[in-house]
Amino acid sequence: MSGERADRAGPDWIAVDWGTSNLRAWAMDAEGRALAETASPRGMGGLAPEDFGPALTAAVADWLPPAGLPGGLSDPVPTLVCGMAGARAGWAEAPYAPVPCAPLDPARAITPPGADPRLDVRILPGLSQARPADVMRGEETQIAGLIARRPRFDGVVCLPGTHTKWAHISAEEVVSFRSFMTGELYALLSTSSILRHGMREDGAPGEVSPDAAADFAEALDTAMSRPESVAGLFALRAEHLLNDLPPSRARARLSGMLIGMELAASRPWWLGREVALIGAPGPTAGYATALEAQGAYVTRLDPTEAVLDGLRAAHAALWEKAE
Amino acid sequence: MSGERADRAGPDWIAVDWGTSNLRAWAMDAEGRALAETASPRGMGGLAPEDFGPALTAAVADWLPPAGLPGGLSDPVPTLVCGMAGARAGWAEAPYAPVPCAPLDPARAITPPGADPRLDVRILPGLSQARPADVMRGEETQIAGLIARRPRFDGVVCLPGTHTKWAHISAEEVVSFRSFMTGELYALLSTSSILRHGMREDGAPGEVSPDAAADFAEALDTAMSRPESVAGLFALRAEHLLNDLPPSRARARLSGMLIGMELAASRPWWLGREVALIGAPGPTAGYATALEAQGAYVTRLDPTEAVLDGLRAAHAALWEKAE
Repeated sequence: MSGERADRAGPDWIAVDWGTSNLRAWAMDAEGRALAETASPRGMGGLAPEDFGPALTAAVADWLPPAGLPGGLSDPVPTLVCGMAGARAGWAEAPYAPVPCAPLDPARAITPPGADPRLDVRILPGLSQARPADVMRGEETQIAGLIARRPRFDGVVCLPGTHTKWAHISAEEVVSFRSFMTGELYALLSTSSILRHGMREDGAPGEVSPDAAADFAEALDTAMSRPESVAGLFALRAEHLLNDLPPSRARARLSGMLIGMELAASRPWWLGREVALIGAPGPTAGYATALEAQGAYVTRLDPTEAVLDGLRAAHAALWEKAE
Repeated sequence: MSGERADRAGPDWIAVDWGTSNLRAWAMDAEGRALAETASPRGMGGLAPEDFGPALTAAVADWLPPAGLPGGLSDPVPTLVCGMAGARAGWAEAPYAPVPCAPLDPARAITPPGADPRLDVRILPGLSQARPADVMRGEETQIAGLIARRPRFDGVVCLPGTHTKWAHISAEEVVSFRSFMTGELYALLSTSSILRHGMREDGAPGEVSPDAAADFAEALDTAMSRPESVAGLFALRAEHLLNDLPPSRARARLSGMLIGMELAASRPWWLGREVALIGAPGPTAGYATALEAQGAYVTRLDPTEAVLDGLRAAHAALWEKAE
C-alpha cells in the first residue's frame, strides 16, 4: 500500500450497517476487531442518492485523515456497507441475489458514485426470492455472520424486526425465506389506529412486560389457534372503554395476537427445528418464550455481533484474498 | 305549540348523523320526508365538547329562524343526533345500552349542554356488549332502521366501515355483535405502511375494480382458508419490486386478504343465514360477492335510508307519543 504512513492511526477498514432509519459504522483493525463505533439518524429513508456520500463522510470523519492534506494521500479505506443503502431508492442499487444462494456473494458488491476519495466503498446486495415473491436487505449479512460462526448450521433463522424474516439455511446457503409484517403492524396499530388510545406505545412487539405475561400468552394462544381473530382487535378498544384495560396489558395482548398470527403462518418453518433467533434479548423475548413453549429449540445470536461477523467475512473475501 | 307561526317555513324536526369525520343533517317534515340535506366536515374527531353546539348551528342555520328575532320565538326544533357525538370525548356522553336490547331506546337519549336555544337536541346512545367486550355508536340507528322496515327480521346485519360491525338480530333486539378492524387496517396499510409504494390508495376495502377481480377472489380464498397468511402481506411489496405488480391488483389483493380474514372470523355469524348488508353498493361489493360465493343469502339496504328510518322511529317514540 504505497503512501501509507507507518504511524497511521485510522482504521484498517470500516464496516457499515445502513438501514432505513439509521446508520451504524465501526472502525475495524486488521484483526477484525471493532476499535470504535458511531451511529447517525441519517437512514436511507430520509436521503436522496446524492446525500449518501456526504452523510457517510460526516459519520466517519473522525477516523479519516484531513481531506485537504497536501502531498500523497493514503490509500482509500476499504468500507463495506450492507442494508437499505443498496436499495433502488438508496445510494446506488445493488441488485438482489436470487435464492437459493450463499447469503453473501462479495463479487456482487457494487461501487456507488460520489463517495469520499478517502473511502473505497462497496455496497453488498440483498436477497430475492421468486415464489413466493420476497426480498431482504441487511438481514442476509446477519445470516452470513451466523454461518461464519456455525458453518454446519442446518435449520431456521428468525430475525424479528419491522419486517421479520424467517430463513431456511442449509449447506451454507439460504434455501428460502419469508417476511412478516408483524413489527410494522404493531407500530401502526399501537400509534396510529383507534387502539392507540389506552395503549402503551413504546417498544417492539416481542417485548413482554412481566406484569402482562399472562395477557401475552393468552392472546398468543388465541391467535395461533384462530389467527382470523386478529381481525377483531377492536376488542382492545372496547376493553379500554368498558373495563379500563390497563395500557401495558392492552399492549401485551396486541403483541401476543400479532406474534401468534406470525407463528401460525411460520409453523412449517419452526416446527421441530432449531431456530436461531437473531435479536436483542428484550425486544425478542416474546418470540423466544412462544417458540420454546411450542417445543422449538431456540438458540440466540446478538444482532450486532451477527452483522459484524457477516461484514468481516465479506471483507476477507473482497480484500484479503486480493492481496 | 305556542308562538309557532302558521307560515313557518322551517323543518318539523332535524335528523343528524354525527360521525368521527363528518356530520350529515336532514330537514324533516311532519310526514318524515327529508326536505333538505346538508353535510359538514366538522366530525366529532376534530371538536372539543364546547364546539359541538356552534358547529351544529352553523350546519343547519339555513333552516332556522333568525337568532335575534324580537318578540316570541318559535318552539325549539326537535333535533335527533346519532353517532359519535354521544361518545365520552364527544359533545356529551350518552351512556351505552347493554345488549341484548332493542337497538334504540329513546328513553336513554340525553340532552347535551350548550345547544342553540332554537334547537331541542337529543343524542341517542350506542350499544355495548360485556363479553366479548364491544361497542358501537351510530350503527345501532341503522339497525333500528332495518327493523323498522322489517320487524320480523331474524338474521345477521353486516355494516362495512372503518370498524365493520356484525350484529345478530332476533325479535327486534340486537342479541350480540362484533367489530372488525378491516377498514382501518386497509387504510393504514394502503396509505401508511411499506405497501403504500405501489398501491392504489383510494376507496374502501370492499371496492373491487373489474380488472382485478381475480386477484381479489384469490386473496380472499387464501385468507379464508389460511387467515394467518395476512401476516405475510409483505409479499405485495416484493411483488411490486420484483414483478411490477400493478397498483390496482395490489390493492385488490390487500382487500381480499383483509376481507377474507374478517369472513373467516365471522363465519359462525353468516354461515347459512340471511345477511342484511347495509352499505353503498360500490364500497361493499367485495363483501356481497364473497358472501354470495359462500352461499349466504345477501339482502341490501342503503345506509342513508337505514339511518333515516332509524331516526324517524326514534323521533316518533320521543315526540309523537308525547303529544
